Amino acid sequence: MTRWKIIVEYEGGGFVGWQRQANGFSVQEALESAITGFSGEQITLYGAGRTDSGVHALAQAAHFDLEKETDADTVRDALNHHLQTKSASVLEAVAMSEDFHARFSATRRSYLYRILNRRAPGALERGRVWHVARPLDATAMHSAAQNLVGNHDFSTFRALRCQAKSPVKTLDQLNVARIGDEIHITAQARSFLHNQIRIFAGTLKLVGEMAWREERVRTALAAKDRSAGGPTAPPEGLYLTRVDY
Amino acid sequence: MTRWKIIVEYEGGGFVGWQRQANGFSVQEALESAITGFSGEQITLYGAGRTDSGVHALAQAAHFDLEKETDADTVRDALNHHLQTKSASVLEAVAMSEDFHARFSATRRSYLYRILNRRAPGALERGRVWHVARPLDATAMHSAAQNLVGNHDFSTFRALRCQAKSPVKTLDQLNVARIGDEIHITAQARSFLHNQIRIFAGTLKLVGEMAWREERVRTALAAKDRSAGGPTAPPEGLYLTRVDY
Repeated sequence: MTRWKIIVEYEGGGFVGWQRQANGFSVQEALESAITGFSGEQITLYGAGRTDSGVHALAQAAHFDLEKETDADTVRDALNHHLQTKSASVLEAVAMSEDFHARFSATRRSYLYRILNRRAPGALERGRVWHVARPLDATAMHSAAQNLVGNHDFSTFRALRCQAKSPVKTLDQLNVARIGDEIHITAQARSFLHNQIRIFAGTLKLVGEMAWREERVRTALAAKDRSAGGPTAPPEGLYLTRVDY
Repeated sequence: MTRWKIIVEYEGGGFVGWQRQANGFSVQEALESAITGFSGEQITLYGAGRTDSGVHALAQAAHFDLEKETDADTVRDALNHHLQTKSASVLEAVAMSEDFHARFSATRRSYLYRILNRRAPGALERGRVWHVARPLDATAMHSAAQNLVGNHDFSTFRALRCQAKSPVKTLDQLNVARIGDEIHITAQARSFLHNQIRIFAGTLKLVGEMAWREERVRTALAAKDRSAGGPTAPPEGLYLTRVDY
């Protein structure tokens, strides 16, 4: 038996999210079917991050166990061959030791949230960015974001349906920068709460358009109450960009 | 009457191309309908470049005349409001003098051709790049491309159905560079022949995978015969990026 790690890119609009669900086609189901199609084995795939419907991944990590003896290039190419959707693609396969776990061994997850910040909506980037027409001040957003970095109770920035045992997490980095017509919010932590980055984005957008002062972000964090935070930004701006082990 | 220049972004997969046709929805038709919807006037829209079906634009330029008195911000916002597709977006509107012509006044057109050059197909960039799995040598491609720069008879790099009177054009720049997993071919000239950049891309790809030596590109150009050139690369990798006046 070999434990395989795979790195997967996907376009979130084509799926109900990472996790297998009764009500639609998930990335997990697409990949599990491809693995079974290739190997004939019934397997379970474990992902590093359970992205929501519409959320994209440049490099999601996942693992599964295979009895079949094969090599890494064959795993990658065969999975791409057997995938019944072009909205996902396996970038890499790596043989791991048996104690590797895509979810529990991860030491850092990195995300990018893209805002298209110009008057005209996006034609080429439609479904890949959050379009905000009003001009945003990226410097004010970055400054406000620094109040969120560190070890905090993030109850304000957590979906009500979040299943994590504790709302306390350590946020390593939260940076905001303007790149042409886009605002890029990048976030890094060992792990995140459900919708945490999308609520960060929705809140920082209020700072960027001067509806909120930086002070109010501190107050919101201290409130430990979802209703004190900004709205949840739409999923299509969010990308899982990297998982470190 | 005011002559308006508009700058338009579009996702080429949503259209039969720039030019109005009986057999499908063109960018020209989409925009002309939006202009009429906004103004009530029957107008003709003139584009700087007649991109083919599937070819994208980051900044196509076009012009039309309007009796209605209005301002640039209103033109841009009203056209985006009246556009019946989200595959196109008007980035900017500018009032011009009456002797401006989007097609004939253009002094330079810039294009980008994107090749995704990695083993795995693109999920996020599907329909936006040409996927070439075999590794390409961008340095060899760039070197070969330099043989095409300058004033030449480009009959080898011209679609058989090209309607230009003369196959002689001056190519100002043709550069090839690797950017991560992508090969970017950028081309600049006052004007191009039909499919010229896509045939450049299809030919340079042969050089990149070592099927052709640089020498053969020179021979092909000198042959002045379409059958001496490489294949026409697919439309989805091509972007009209800029028009200068």
